[in-house]
Amino acid sequence: MSEENPSLQGAVCPLPLRHHNKIVLGHGSGGRLSHGLIEDLFLPNFDNPVLQAGNDAGVVQPKPGIQLAVSTDSHVVWPIFFPGGDIGRLAVCGTVNDVAMMGAKPLYLTAGFILEEGLDVSVLARVTNSMRTAAAEAGVAIIAGDTKVVQKGKADGLYINTAGVGIVTPGTQIGGAQARAGDVVILSGPIGDHGIAVLQARGELGFESGIESDVAPLNHLVAAMLDSGEPDNPETGIHVLRDPTRGGLATTLNEIACQSQVSIFLDEGSILVRRPVAAACEMLGFDPLYVANEGKLIAVVAAEQAAGVLARMHSTRYGKEARIIGEVRASPPGRVLLRTAIGSTRVVDMLAGEMLPRIC
Amino acid sequence: MSEENPSLQGAVCPLPLRHHNKIVLGHGSGGRLSHGLIEDLFLPNFDNPVLQAGNDAGVVQPKPGIQLAVSTDSHVVWPIFFPGGDIGRLAVCGTVNDVAMMGAKPLYLTAGFILEEGLDVSVLARVTNSMRTAAAEAGVAIIAGDTKVVQKGKADGLYINTAGVGIVTPGTQIGGAQARAGDVVILSGPIGDHGIAVLQARGELGFESGIESDVAPLNHLVAAMLDSGEPDNPETGIHVLRDPTRGGLATTLNEIACQSQVSIFLDEGSILVRRPVAAACEMLGFDPLYVANEGKLIAVVAAEQAAGVLARMHSTRYGKEARIIGEVRASPPGRVLLRTAIGSTRVVDMLAGEMLPRIC
Repeated sequence: MSEENPSLQGAVCPLPLRHHNKIVLGHGSGGRLSHGLIEDLFLPNFDNPVLQAGNDAGVVQPKPGIQLAVSTDSHVVWPIFFPGGDIGRLAVCGTVNDVAMMGAKPLYLTAGFILEEGLDVSVLARVTNSMRTAAAEAGVAIIAGDTKVVQKGKADGLYINTAGVGIVTPGTQIGGAQARAGDVVILSGPIGDHGIAVLQARGELGFESGIESDVAPLNHLVAAMLDSGEPDNPETGIHVLRDPTRGGLATTLNEIACQSQVSIFLDEGSILVRRPVAAACEMLGFDPLYVANEGKLIAVVAAEQAAGVLARMHSTRYGKEARIIGEVRASPPGRVLLRTAIGSTRVVDMLAGEMLPRIC
Repeated sequence: MSEENPSLQGAVCPLPLRHHNKIVLGHGSGGRLSHGLIEDLFLPNFDNPVLQAGNDAGVVQPKPGIQLAVSTDSHVVWPIFFPGGDIGRLAVCGTVNDVAMMGAKPLYLTAGFILEEGLDVSVLARVTNSMRTAAAEAGVAIIAGDTKVVQKGKADGLYINTAGVGIVTPGTQIGGAQARAGDVVILSGPIGDHGIAVLQARGELGFESGIESDVAPLNHLVAAMLDSGEPDNPETGIHVLRDPTRGGLATTLNEIACQSQVSIFLDEGSILVRRPVAAACEMLGFDPLYVANEGKLIAVVAAEQAAGVLARMHSTRYGKEARIIGEVRASPPGRVLLRTAIGSTRVVDMLAGEMLPRIC
């Protein structure tokens, strides 16, 4: 098949940076331009195998017997408050989830605030309270912080960076390069809620969708998935975990296909999209496959263990709607393909430019 | 003495937040207003003993046998480049130093970039290269990163958050609350270089001072200080380590005096200030005691072990000009006092408002 259709041949992942002399919004999209920035600028400078692995968190071993997963995210979402959450809940959950996606138990967060002069203290108080609630739900402690203030017009209300540290469950070998032909792809629930909720808050929908962001800490879901229930046989068959945030499901699956040098075949009919999200996407010309999520995860799992993993997901708060959405094949490497409802197959590429700036 | 002069009585450290409805630049000063924000807003929400300790990094024990120091700083220095450094070197050194000040060996950093649309890619490349050089000097690896882009006018070029993780040297008990009456206070070199170098870059001096920022990683200096050279007697007598950044020497010593509920008596003649820094301060009406440093540390050390600690400092690149600058006494608790060159004693308070916004 791949010899007949050039679009089905192996993909070259990043877009080289040298075509840009200036930073554009797309460099923060999480898609192809972001990857170009990482490949051309950050990796050559910060070269080390941990960063090269290209996962949601870096996994390191500071001493024999202990593996840490360490991650960071800056949050610049606009507006600060949106249906279902705010920048504070997002800042806690985003980093908790990145640590959890390495099969780690998140324990500690740091919080760095950049505040714009003139910000209402009540806004900061509300955001801080959200962080407290989200941290309590996730069971993590915020153990270090920093506050900077910039002049009016040099930020947009407030930006929050969080970094997270967790302990990797012993024996876990999870990463974007671990997908194998024959594995199945599980998605924990419907996609696109976060992106559409933020657009709603921006007044860009023109109607009340009732959609709330899915922003949530997924570490308890991951812990349930990683607990086989059989101490003698802890192997769960989970090879990859990743949360499809910026760039959406399509971009995240492309990352996995590139890292593992496999292809991922999706079944369009299995991918859940809530009706109002689908309606909003249709109206705005968005493909829900590219819309950001903040409380969903993708798991690539050995086929024979998928039923057990799914059952454990269904028993948790944020995994009730988990489904198998596709499978992993050997070729064409680096490609994501979608079997549409009408039976055709199309290539699903990584997000190229920027669809929704400042979505997280 | 303290009964006669009310200014010499115990100090109440933070300024309550309730007098401010809006964030002002002073909330990012590192001084009294910053402490008010922490006490009134962050600590009640993120309440835990690690954060309550109020040190440069949080110290935690994720497993028996291993203690981690974790810290974070966002960097918003303006301009991005200044004599002796740039925001990239600052972002690496600032967090390396905060981790080192707990007597820890910094190992890993995360880097979160907030870029303004339209930033020259060459600026980012130069800054990233600086981070590489500083990380190599410190011997730390940057193992996780994130990039966000905001619209033109919603940031100022670029902001960088770093978080750091280090391993606490076993047996170390260092913290702001450990100063004891009878200890001596050591300062690693002359003060004020960083603040004046940044002012120079802003064109606010009106002349070429030739001063360069002292921005440097201090972890190798700390490692030398903590190596007693006697494996059978590893005790070094080092009770407190802290780097006098925002708010300067005066503010940092006030923090220590408050945390340890002791008084600190300084000898003005022992505090080194380079001639051009002193001249710039005089011209601008600044007290060098409040000007930021980015490559200096304060150590509070048991008197009988001070000579050994000083000797080890003098053998390192960034400790050559280390000197004893004062002593710790029991009362008045929470106060810093300065014996001036003419023999009088004055109270040295914590920085109240904002002197130099966006100095780091």
